[in-house]
Amino acid sequence: MVTKKEIAEHLGISRTAVSLVLNNTPSSTISSETRNKILQAAKDLGYRDVEVSPKLCFVLYDRDANDPRYMVHLQTIEAAASRFNYGLIFMNITHAPESLSKLQRSLDNQEIEGFIISGDVDEKLLNMFRHSNTPYIFYGLPLCNQEKGLNFIAFDDRKLALDATQYLMSLGHTRIALFMGSLDYDIHQLALEGYIQAHETNGIPLDKSLIQISNDENGYELCKRAEKLRLDYTAAFCANTVIQFGVLQYLQSTGVSVPNDVSLIGSGLTELVKVSVPQLTTLYVPATENEKAVSLLLEIINSRNPEGTSSLLITKSELNEGGTTSPRKQEVLR
Amino acid sequence: MVTKKEIAEHLGISRTAVSLVLNNTPSSTISSETRNKILQAAKDLGYRDVEVSPKLCFVLYDRDANDPRYMVHLQTIEAAASRFNYGLIFMNITHAPESLSKLQRSLDNQEIEGFIISGDVDEKLLNMFRHSNTPYIFYGLPLCNQEKGLNFIAFDDRKLALDATQYLMSLGHTRIALFMGSLDYDIHQLALEGYIQAHETNGIPLDKSLIQISNDENGYELCKRAEKLRLDYTAAFCANTVIQFGVLQYLQSTGVSVPNDVSLIGSGLTELVKVSVPQLTTLYVPATENEKAVSLLLEIINSRNPEGTSSLLITKSELNEGGTTSPRKQEVLR
Repeated sequence: MVTKKEIAEHLGISRTAVSLVLNNTPSSTISSETRNKILQAAKDLGYRDVEVSPKLCFVLYDRDANDPRYMVHLQTIEAAASRFNYGLIFMNITHAPESLSKLQRSLDNQEIEGFIISGDVDEKLLNMFRHSNTPYIFYGLPLCNQEKGLNFIAFDDRKLALDATQYLMSLGHTRIALFMGSLDYDIHQLALEGYIQAHETNGIPLDKSLIQISNDENGYELCKRAEKLRLDYTAAFCANTVIQFGVLQYLQSTGVSVPNDVSLIGSGLTELVKVSVPQLTTLYVPATENEKAVSLLLEIINSRNPEGTSSLLITKSELNEGGTTSPRKQEVLR
Repeated sequence: MVTKKEIAEHLGISRTAVSLVLNNTPSSTISSETRNKILQAAKDLGYRDVEVSPKLCFVLYDRDANDPRYMVHLQTIEAAASRFNYGLIFMNITHAPESLSKLQRSLDNQEIEGFIISGDVDEKLLNMFRHSNTPYIFYGLPLCNQEKGLNFIAFDDRKLALDATQYLMSLGHTRIALFMGSLDYDIHQLALEGYIQAHETNGIPLDKSLIQISNDENGYELCKRAEKLRLDYTAAFCANTVIQFGVLQYLQSTGVSVPNDVSLIGSGLTELVKVSVPQLTTLYVPATENEKAVSLLLEIINSRNPEGTSSLLITKSELNEGGTTSPRKQEVLR
């Protein structure tokens, strides 16, 4: 799209002259020759008079846009932005320099009023926003990055893990496995803390052999491992639906009935929850809470206070009942 | 975001005056009083001088943005648009009047250079674009809507079904089930045609009992039905990965080994392909072909010939090998 400025530069005349002509303002200071030259250039260069509508941008950083855990966020953010009459630009950015400089250009040209950033953020990305004047909010920012002066919305993954584990306990389960990804990621570290806290609170002894970690978040392999180790468990909390789904598949492939033999609870409301048979039982952050990322960003945009950074911890979660949990079977008295 | 026009209206003065002041052009015709008024209003109303970058828009119509079959398209389109230095706006539009009028406003204000429309298009939506001057392209437009004068890109679903069925035949399978959705949708009608054609071409008798339809595309239920009917098949072509995935789950839950007992091939490269164990074997349209939607749209944008509508039929597909197909087991001679 060609701007008035570019037309002016192309013709070597003032931007004002271009503005006067293209805004169709009667003016005695512009000759009809210049006027025609401007109109011709505008036509040749494809100029269109545009009234821009306000825009937000959802940035998915260093993650595959096809990942079900992030797409559900894009959907929520688009719906919320739309309700506030904002258009939503979607950018899938990687840590490659050319990708980052694309993002930097978007930050610089001020066309986008605010950014919502999700994915696997790193120091480079944090710095880019720290030094920008454009409003932004990090979505689901890990604890280690939750410093003063950054705008973010975070999720109480510890509480969610606590609630999920206690939900299994309320069904009578005491031998509860924890299947999760690398402890280098906050979400898994917090899942562990919540899981341990549930055991402490309920006076149920912790058996650390039931805690199984897969760095590539491969639930199928985790569950196979538990079988090879002959781990004794009647239920499992899975740190996300991708892990939960792999666990379910392994159990089903070995003839273990879910939920009759083993109950599974996970975290999140991705589309895996729905395509799975039975549907996955999960705790998830309701859309009304996720949408707060947009309203918080709009507050930042509207107040424009350079000191007034904002953050929010989302603690609310809801149960998607699904069909992967049931009360522990009563054991036959021997 | 406030425009110069709105500032002018707010102050009841000419847009030219506002432009002159905000473009910082020396001018003797504007009093310093007016100049200050304009600068104050610009500040109060939050005006920023913006050079807009060119934008395309991906519209997902009447489908859940969380649907894995569409998200893979968004990812491809975003990457392609980005390579051409276009920003991508994402809009999830429904047939509700207020949602359609939001789209209409985007069409009218000319801010977006071109639209790529995916999802379950209807007559209302087609009309909106027929009567618009904004470049657009329908992505995966059904046959019944492929009329002269519409820009679209379509996929050769008949050939894909033919190739998929023949792939199973090349592995020695002759009793091949077809699991699909409603014949009201082109993709399923074409899957049927390709499936039949494969049988004719290879001289394999067609057993119509092996064709099973589920209007809600529930592969789990389809496969259960096949079991209750005691259908005899060693392989199945599934019209999409959601169906294929349900079929796989049912077979696994009943102890049928995939691919040892039954081979499954599907269509598409969604994330279900990757989270499944074993990975789904599918034929899919490679990203380089899908990206042609963007290059075709850019051709339409750049030529701007009202008569010159464009369409493209994508016939190329590739095999994602996965692990759900194997040669038919040799039967023991009796």
